[in-house]
Amino acid sequence: MSRLELIDESILAIPEYVPGKSVEETAQKYGLDPDSIIKLGSNENPLGPSKKAIQAIVENASKVHLYPSADAGELVDALSTYLGIPASNICAAGPGMDGLLDNLIRLIIRDGDEVIIPIPTFSYYEIAARANGASVVYVKRNENFGVDIEAIQKAVSSRTKMIFLCSPNNPSGNIVPEIDIRALLDSFEGILFVDEAYVEFAEHSIKNLVLEFDNLVVGRTFSKIFGLAGLRLGYGIMPAWLKLEYMKVATPFNVSLPALKAGIAAISDKAHIEKSIEMVKEGRKYLQEQIPFRVYESMANFVLVDVSPYNASDVCEILLRKGIIVRDCGSFRGAGNSLIRVTVGTQEQNMRVVEAFRCV
Amino acid sequence: MSRLELIDESILAIPEYVPGKSVEETAQKYGLDPDSIIKLGSNENPLGPSKKAIQAIVENASKVHLYPSADAGELVDALSTYLGIPASNICAAGPGMDGLLDNLIRLIIRDGDEVIIPIPTFSYYEIAARANGASVVYVKRNENFGVDIEAIQKAVSSRTKMIFLCSPNNPSGNIVPEIDIRALLDSFEGILFVDEAYVEFAEHSIKNLVLEFDNLVVGRTFSKIFGLAGLRLGYGIMPAWLKLEYMKVATPFNVSLPALKAGIAAISDKAHIEKSIEMVKEGRKYLQEQIPFRVYESMANFVLVDVSPYNASDVCEILLRKGIIVRDCGSFRGAGNSLIRVTVGTQEQNMRVVEAFRCV
Repeated sequence: MSRLELIDESILAIPEYVPGKSVEETAQKYGLDPDSIIKLGSNENPLGPSKKAIQAIVENASKVHLYPSADAGELVDALSTYLGIPASNICAAGPGMDGLLDNLIRLIIRDGDEVIIPIPTFSYYEIAARANGASVVYVKRNENFGVDIEAIQKAVSSRTKMIFLCSPNNPSGNIVPEIDIRALLDSFEGILFVDEAYVEFAEHSIKNLVLEFDNLVVGRTFSKIFGLAGLRLGYGIMPAWLKLEYMKVATPFNVSLPALKAGIAAISDKAHIEKSIEMVKEGRKYLQEQIPFRVYESMANFVLVDVSPYNASDVCEILLRKGIIVRDCGSFRGAGNSLIRVTVGTQEQNMRVVEAFRCV
Repeated sequence: MSRLELIDESILAIPEYVPGKSVEETAQKYGLDPDSIIKLGSNENPLGPSKKAIQAIVENASKVHLYPSADAGELVDALSTYLGIPASNICAAGPGMDGLLDNLIRLIIRDGDEVIIPIPTFSYYEIAARANGASVVYVKRNENFGVDIEAIQKAVSSRTKMIFLCSPNNPSGNIVPEIDIRALLDSFEGILFVDEAYVEFAEHSIKNLVLEFDNLVVGRTFSKIFGLAGLRLGYGIMPAWLKLEYMKVATPFNVSLPALKAGIAAISDKAHIEKSIEMVKEGRKYLQEQIPFRVYESMANFVLVDVSPYNASDVCEILLRKGIIVRDCGSFRGAGNSLIRVTVGTQEQNMRVVEAFRCV
């Protein structure tokens, strides 16, 4: 029994959901000790969460029977100070930055609207846009994964409501220059979403452009440098007029109490932030130099490896047998079948990764 | 500067978001000690979270740098055992049951589709449906808040894709009889969503009908009896064909690690569940008998009070000055201006509530 006629064809066409491999599954499949497995497939912070964040979770554990504040106001105020941007331009979001995308897309997109996505990139823009009835126009990045702004401008139609840029880009690690983003904002009537999930590992953010342009939203996350992926916390920086509309349709209480408290603690822990940045900068240099394949320049906490003439899936299998989980980029639209994304780990983890690649 | 032309008129028409009053704000405004304030406005569990759930949060606090499993599989398995329903019919959801509604509505609703909502009821169905481009058809409940199934059937058009029923209903506390739900499922081609957020305090659930009908979704939450409102965790029970489609568009990793672990712990703590039910059953009887206004029969952890000839907002103000936060139902569409919803508290809290109502 089913009523598939209730579901739009564009959604029926999305392939069935398959969850990723966990440490436990990998251990079982390959007969490995779970503690010996290193997970470098999800760009988590190998240093763990800030101790201050852990303490905030523990201190508030007995209060989780109470709803958090509906708008996570305390966290928004803390972010305002941290960013030097007014609270009227900031929305906290859950689950993760994906929650921000969900709410923003359903606010902006009506059926038949178009969105533009330069590929390869983070796949959730596409899923969220299609789930809301958008048609997706893909623009191929160049061979070094640079974004061709003119090609995007040419792809804009009267139905184009949103453009998604990831900077630094997942999975390639390069940024979109500010001059290109300005050119796009000047010429585009819709909303430009710039995903800065990895920006703390780069040299430059375009966050302040939100105060200058009325059509820019910058997405951020606590899942990467802040080491809080398990709490599903993100935030958006957006024009004040848009925040007012966004809050009307945002899922109420979307930031959990542990996320609210740990988020405030994490941005106050400057030492943990600096240590994480330093580890990533050293580690990615090491991986770029030592992995015996082409490794792209990265401004993020991962590097992209082209294992040609081998297949990414074969190489990932070899690494898995050695207890190393990395990301086969075959599931990134337009990425081909020879790219692997490797999270920068601790020095010890990075050495294991290099050794494993040398055995391919 | 703004680009309001990007936003659909139906969303522009939603009133600006105003967050509810917190204990801290109330304390400050009325010059009260925060510890003396009792919060009976959000139907939280006054006994707090299960101790097992608190322990699970504390034990996992140092692991929140890792993503949880994408589909919260461990929790789904635990729920399957708890409910006696196959895991292929259960989806865990965040943030709260609202996250379930968000994902389900964007899966089912296309612009111009209609949904039917019997009012007064929980207001998020309306917001989530409008945010996704639906037109909402309201059907008034009768004077005792019973649902008129024939009136709903008459309101169904060729564009009606979803009907939302809350049982026990928020804010009135009455249930929809199973015979009426069966009649609706038999006659309706779209999806019937039955919100059972408060079902543990009632005598009967219709959850097993999911195995019998291909167009029923039952929504549940951990925010009420399980005392985990701050973790934003819910779940849905739905036909297996629908789960497959739902998982394609659900926000990935929407259940946080603390929610996943605490949820599993909470459903294992039978003593806490039983104690909570017992407290609510005694407390609502007491409130029904002692509050000197009309109090409706309730199967939930709250009671609805009609303070006619007074205004609900005036009475809420009187209670606030005494440090008691309750819910003025003026914001529930179709509820009029004399209804107040009061969460059943501990016996001590209930006595303060009764005393306060006696002073009106």
